[in-house]
Amino acid sequence: MITLVLVESSLSRLPDWARRKDVISNYKKVYGKPYDVLDVNAIPPRMRKMVGEKEGRPDIVHRALLSITDHPLYSMGRISLYMHTVEERIFSFSPSIRPPRNYLRFLGLMAELLREGWVGESRETALIREVDLTLEEIADGSILLDESGEFLNPISFLKSLNEGKFIVGCFPHGEFSEKVERLAKFKLSLHRGTLSSSAAISMLLSYAYYKEVWDP
Amino acid sequence: MITLVLVESSLSRLPDWARRKDVISNYKKVYGKPYDVLDVNAIPPRMRKMVGEKEGRPDIVHRALLSITDHPLYSMGRISLYMHTVEERIFSFSPSIRPPRNYLRFLGLMAELLREGWVGESRETALIREVDLTLEEIADGSILLDESGEFLNPISFLKSLNEGKFIVGCFPHGEFSEKVERLAKFKLSLHRGTLSSSAAISMLLSYAYYKEVWDP
Repeated sequence: MITLVLVESSLSRLPDWARRKDVISNYKKVYGKPYDVLDVNAIPPRMRKMVGEKEGRPDIVHRALLSITDHPLYSMGRISLYMHTVEERIFSFSPSIRPPRNYLRFLGLMAELLREGWVGESRETALIREVDLTLEEIADGSILLDESGEFLNPISFLKSLNEGKFIVGCFPHGEFSEKVERLAKFKLSLHRGTLSSSAAISMLLSYAYYKEVWDP
Repeated sequence: MITLVLVESSLSRLPDWARRKDVISNYKKVYGKPYDVLDVNAIPPRMRKMVGEKEGRPDIVHRALLSITDHPLYSMGRISLYMHTVEERIFSFSPSIRPPRNYLRFLGLMAELLREGWVGESRETALIREVDLTLEEIADGSILLDESGEFLNPISFLKSLNEGKFIVGCFPHGEFSEKVERLAKFKLSLHRGTLSSSAAISMLLSYAYYKEVWDP
């Protein structure tokens, strides 16, 4: 079983400074209608400096989630998935979720999730739900995927693990917070260079699938 | 070097039946403005039966292209990339392209590509350009990624190849055309089950990267 924790995910509601007519009308122009999700692409250019460096990129979260839920390891029930956001909210995912593939439908779903704390047929059977756990509780002792980590043969590394608990950053720029760094017991690099969140996830899961199916 | 050929990619301009006011106004409602790209999500529901089973899903193409261009093998210059569309147009990609990560910007770029036949600073230095080659010329003798193919250890398989030329379907439903089937000299399955285009690409490229870096 692999536990994946997406950290500092670039997903939040519109902050107070963006709850104004001109921003709403820019969302309509860019995305057809307003969504209560901060997306730097829909913020008028003159106001973009208000968006923090890790904020306003739900597209990164969308792509990361699809890389996970599309992966055969996910449909095989071998992945336990959590998402921690820039605002320190923590969400847990059901094994049966299929996020919308269309970006604007995804924004609609995320607006509902951020507002209600869950999405699905009912709070009890929610596909994604906010959980009352701390990041320490779900991610302490994890392996952090990071360009600056040790560049090791990833399949051999996976074979050496008892438990695979991985942290992947889900933000556009900047370093991991100190809090996240403290949780990691080890830093692993999958490539000597920058990787997007979804590329890092796809590589990790492909190696884990290989280990499970071809090299157990 | 790996040659990747995305085939029957679900990307085309609006067909004549969709060049009407009510469709354009639906595009504005769904995507903020009209794009000259057929996207089933923006077609009014009552007209969706007009969209062929392989048509109208540029989001699949978007995700596939980002899976490729985000991959370290691509930045290492180890991938030669072609896209064949449902309408039998063929495009070649420059090694330095970074497609827009935002879906609507991607639609804008694809509208330009489908209209002009190239995108970039000039036709000569185009990042993507239409080429005057047939599918046979670029993909004959390829390995087709297909659920129904042989399920072999992918890293061993890659090591056994002299030349890696792969065909990946980039459409939502249905079987490969007979024409594509005829070009394949071998069918390889990466998982005993359906895979999205981007998941299949990510698995293939991760194994190819592993072979290159860790098991040459």
